[in-house]
Amino acid sequence: MEKEVPRLDRVFIYDTTLRDGTQGEGISLSVEDKLKIAARLDQLGVAYIEGGWPGSNPKDMEFFLRAKSMPWKHAKIAAFGATCRPGLKASEDANLQALVQSGAPVVTIFGKTWDFHVTAALRTTLEENLRIIRDSISFLKEQGLEVMFDAEHFYDGYKANPQYAKEAVLAAEQSGADWIVLCDTNGGTLPQDMLAITQEMVFTLRAPVGVHVHNDGDLAVANSLMGIMAGARQIQGTINGYGERCGNANLCSIIPNLQLKMNMECLPAQNVALLTETAHYVAEIANVTLRNDMGFVGHSAFAHKGGMHVSALLKDPGTYEHIEPEQVGNQRRVLVSELSGMSNIVYKAKELGLDVNRENADTKQIIENIKNLEHQGFQFEGAEASFEVLLRRAFGEDPVPFVLDSIRLIIEKRSDAEFTSEAMIKLRVGDQVVHTAAEGNGPVNAVDNALRKALISHYPFLGDCHLTDYKVRVLDEKDATGAKVRVLIETRNHQDSWSTVGVSANIIEASWQALMDSFQYGLLKHGRVENDQMETTA
Amino acid sequence: MEKEVPRLDRVFIYDTTLRDGTQGEGISLSVEDKLKIAARLDQLGVAYIEGGWPGSNPKDMEFFLRAKSMPWKHAKIAAFGATCRPGLKASEDANLQALVQSGAPVVTIFGKTWDFHVTAALRTTLEENLRIIRDSISFLKEQGLEVMFDAEHFYDGYKANPQYAKEAVLAAEQSGADWIVLCDTNGGTLPQDMLAITQEMVFTLRAPVGVHVHNDGDLAVANSLMGIMAGARQIQGTINGYGERCGNANLCSIIPNLQLKMNMECLPAQNVALLTETAHYVAEIANVTLRNDMGFVGHSAFAHKGGMHVSALLKDPGTYEHIEPEQVGNQRRVLVSELSGMSNIVYKAKELGLDVNRENADTKQIIENIKNLEHQGFQFEGAEASFEVLLRRAFGEDPVPFVLDSIRLIIEKRSDAEFTSEAMIKLRVGDQVVHTAAEGNGPVNAVDNALRKALISHYPFLGDCHLTDYKVRVLDEKDATGAKVRVLIETRNHQDSWSTVGVSANIIEASWQALMDSFQYGLLKHGRVENDQMETTA
Repeated sequence: MEKEVPRLDRVFIYDTTLRDGTQGEGISLSVEDKLKIAARLDQLGVAYIEGGWPGSNPKDMEFFLRAKSMPWKHAKIAAFGATCRPGLKASEDANLQALVQSGAPVVTIFGKTWDFHVTAALRTTLEENLRIIRDSISFLKEQGLEVMFDAEHFYDGYKANPQYAKEAVLAAEQSGADWIVLCDTNGGTLPQDMLAITQEMVFTLRAPVGVHVHNDGDLAVANSLMGIMAGARQIQGTINGYGERCGNANLCSIIPNLQLKMNMECLPAQNVALLTETAHYVAEIANVTLRNDMGFVGHSAFAHKGGMHVSALLKDPGTYEHIEPEQVGNQRRVLVSELSGMSNIVYKAKELGLDVNRENADTKQIIENIKNLEHQGFQFEGAEASFEVLLRRAFGEDPVPFVLDSIRLIIEKRSDAEFTSEAMIKLRVGDQVVHTAAEGNGPVNAVDNALRKALISHYPFLGDCHLTDYKVRVLDEKDATGAKVRVLIETRNHQDSWSTVGVSANIIEASWQALMDSFQYGLLKHGRVENDQMETTA
Repeated sequence: MEKEVPRLDRVFIYDTTLRDGTQGEGISLSVEDKLKIAARLDQLGVAYIEGGWPGSNPKDMEFFLRAKSMPWKHAKIAAFGATCRPGLKASEDANLQALVQSGAPVVTIFGKTWDFHVTAALRTTLEENLRIIRDSISFLKEQGLEVMFDAEHFYDGYKANPQYAKEAVLAAEQSGADWIVLCDTNGGTLPQDMLAITQEMVFTLRAPVGVHVHNDGDLAVANSLMGIMAGARQIQGTINGYGERCGNANLCSIIPNLQLKMNMECLPAQNVALLTETAHYVAEIANVTLRNDMGFVGHSAFAHKGGMHVSALLKDPGTYEHIEPEQVGNQRRVLVSELSGMSNIVYKAKELGLDVNRENADTKQIIENIKNLEHQGFQFEGAEASFEVLLRRAFGEDPVPFVLDSIRLIIEKRSDAEFTSEAMIKLRVGDQVVHTAAEGNGPVNAVDNALRKALISHYPFLGDCHLTDYKVRVLDEKDATGAKVRVLIETRNHQDSWSTVGVSANIIEASWQALMDSFQYGLLKHGRVENDQMETTA
C-alpha cells in the first residue's frame, strides 16, 4: 500500500517535565508547582504538556481536574499511563479508566516492544503483548482521544529482535494511534544507531513518529536531533533535562539547535528568546540550582574567561560565540580571573560606567592592584559584587559606612560540653558608638549576627538581606591548617542577589572581608534612599 | 600522490583538564593540584596530558619543571601555546621559546584557520597567517618535539571558506605537524556537520586527525564520537567536561561510549573501571561538586527511583540499565533502600580484623551509628583513618590518650591591626595536668599548635607528624554561615599518611574532631612502642 501521510512542516515539542522530569533524584513538585510550570510552558509555546500519571496518585488526578479549566493558548494537555495488564480487557483496566476520567484531550500510553522485556518484566507471551497494545489503543481511540503510543525500549528492542519490535508498533498504528513515539528508555543508544533505526521506522510507519530519549550516554540532545533528521516530527523531553538517572533529553538545548541552527520550527519564532527565563523559572519552582554550564540557558553559557577570547570579543562577539546570547534570552558576561588580561577588567569597569582608559596611569595602577589580589588568592569571577565594590573604591566611590573599633571572638569548649561561639563588635556609625555581642552556632555565624545587630537600626535594608550561600576553599592545601582560605558569600534580598569574596590564612578574617563587601554592595544598590543622611555623616 | 599513512588501531585520549578545563568558571588549580590530577590521569591511562600554557604564567611553567622528574607510565606531557605573532619569526617568539623551555616532549599550538578570525581577531593577512603556521610548526619540529596543530575554529572556518581552512591545515601538515586537531572552538557545530567535515578532512590529510570540541550546543560528546566515526583518532577533552562557557567534551562520557559500545580501544581495557573514581577525585581536587546526574560516573547514573523500574531491576538489571555500573566503577543504587551501605561497612570491619557479624546486635548498633554519622554529613571514603578509629572505638579499642578539660580560642582585631588568634588548652595526661597556649596565623592553626605543645613531651611520635592537607567543604550551602562544614585533614610522618574527618556547624569543632582522630590514629599506628607506659596509666 502506498504511504500517503500528511507532511508535517514543523516539530512538535512534547514536554514531560511534570511527569518523567519528576523521576529525577531530588525533583518533587506539588500540584501548584505543576500548574505554574504548565502555564509557563504554554506561554513558551510547546505543543503538548504531559501533566502526570492520573492512575498512579491523587496529586496527578487533581492536576488534570484543575488544568481543564485553564486557558491553554498553545499546548494540549496529555495524561500518561500504561497499556492494560496481561489477561485483562482494556475497558476493565482501572489505569486506562483513570486516563479517560482525567479529561485530558491527549493520552500517552507506553507499551513493550522489546521481547526480553515482555517475557522478563511483564512476564507474559509475545502474542499477549500485541493483544494488550491493540486493545488498549482501540479502547482509548473509541473515547475520542488523541492517542500516542510510547514504544518503551524501542531501540534496544529493535537491536534484539527487529521483527517483533516492528510488529508491536505496527499493532499500535493499526489500532489507530495518532503518533508512534520511539523511546530510548535506558538512554544508551548511539547517535548513529538512532539515525538508522528511526529512519527505518519512518519508512515503515504511516503515523507520524516521535522520539523520547534518555541521557545515560550523555547523548540525549544529539539523539533527539538524529530523530528529527531521520524524519521524526515530535520530541519528548524535559526543561533542563530533568529525569531519572542522568535525565531526559533537554528541551532547552534541543529547541535552539532545531530552530536556530537547523531551521526547523518548533516554537513560535519570537518565543525562543523566552528559553533562558523559562529554564530559570522551572529550576526555581523545582528548588534546584540551575547548572551554570548548561548549554544556551546557563549563567556561564556566554561567559568569557580567557584574556585572548575577551580581546577578540571586543573586536567582534561572533569570534567566540556560536549564537547571539539574546536569541535565547541569555546574556554575555566577561569574567575577571587570573587567566584574563587587562581587556576583561576594562570591559567590566566600562560596564559599571566607570571612566577607564587603558593608557591612563591610574587605571594601570588599579589593574596592577587587582592582579596582585588575584595572586594572593582572590578570585572575582564568582564574586562580582566584591569586584564592583573594589573598582568603585579604587575610583574613589567609597561609602565607608562605619569605622571598626574592634572585633573579639571567643570560642570555647569545657570538658564534654558543646563548643560555644560568642562575638563582640565595637564600631562607630557617624558619631555614635555601637558595641554589641551575639552568639552563633559557629564563629562566622556569631560574627555575622553581631554585625547585623550593630548596624540594622542605622541600615534597615539589612533586614531584607539574607546570607544564602557560604563556601570555603582552602588554597595551597599543603600548608594544612596554616593555609590561606578563600571564602565566598552569597547574599540575597527580595529582588537581587550578589556574591562577595575574602582571602586570608584566618578563616574569620576572610569571612569578615566577604561580609564587609556584601554589606557595602548592598548599601550601594539597596541602601541609598533610607541612608542618605548617614552616608554624609559617616 | 597516494595517501599512505599508518593505520591507527586505537583512539588517543588527550586530556586538557589542566589547561582548557581551568578556563571553566569556578575551576582553579594550584600547581600541587595539577600534579596530583596528572598522576591520576596517567594511572587512568590517557595518552596525553596537557599541563598548561608555559608562556602565560609562572604557575604553569613550574608545573612543567616538576613534571619532568615524575615517572609517567602511560601519558606524554604536552605544553600548550599559540603560533608566533604576526610579523615575528617563530624562533624569536617568546611564547614559542617558553614552550621549548618547558621541557615537555609534546607541544600543541593553536592557529587560525577561519579567514574571518585571521582578519578580525589576529588582524593580519591570510597569507601572513599561513606563514605564521608554517614557521611556528617548523621551528618546533626542529627542536625534536612531537607537535600537534590545534586548528582553532576549524568547523566554522570550513563553513565560511573551505578552501582557506584546508590550506591552513595543509600548511601545518606540510611543515611537519604530527597531528592535525580540528577544533570546534565555539561549540556550536551540529553532529551531522561534524561527521561530514571531519570525513572530508581525514580524506584530505596524511597526518592523523584529532578533534577538540566544546559543548555550547550540548552536543560535545556526540560530536567527539562523530569525529571518530569519520576517521579521527584523537579526542581532546576534559574530565567531567570542565571548560569555558558550557565546558569541553567530557572524557568521562566519551571513553565508555567508545570503549564499551563502539569497541574502540582508548584506555587499557581494565582501566575503564577507574573512571568513576577518577571523576570524583578530580572534582574533589577542584573543590566542585560532581553533578549527580552525570552520565556513567554520577552518583545518580544508576540510581532507580520509579517503583516499576525497581521491581523489573530485581528481576534483571539489564531491564533498565544500558551498561553494568561496575564497568565504569560506579554502582547501582535503589533510592528506596540503603542496603548496599551495610555490606560495605561489614567488609571494611572484617578487613581490619574486627569481629563483625551482620546478625549480631552490637554490630547492628555500630552500623546504625555509622549510618547516622553519614546522615549528619560525615563521609569516610576520603577519611579512612577516621573510619578505622571509629570502628576500633566502637569495638572497645579506645586508647584514650588524655582527658580534655577545656579549649578556649580568642580571635581579635583592633581597628586597622591584623587579626590575631590565640588558643589555650588544658588537659590531663595520666595524672599530669597540662595547660598550654599558642598563637597561629588562623584559629585552627592556633589550636593545632597548642595541642602539639601540650602533648609532644608525652607522645614524641608527634614530632614526626605534620599536617599536610586541610580541606573545608560547606554542606547544605544554602544555610550560609550557619551551615555545617566538613573538614578533611591529612597527616603524614616519614613512612605513612592518613586522612581524618570532622563535621559540625562550628568549623573549629569540625577541625578539632579531625585533629583528634588524626592524633588517635597516629598513636595507634606509630605511637605504641614509646608510649606503652602512658597508655596503661591513661
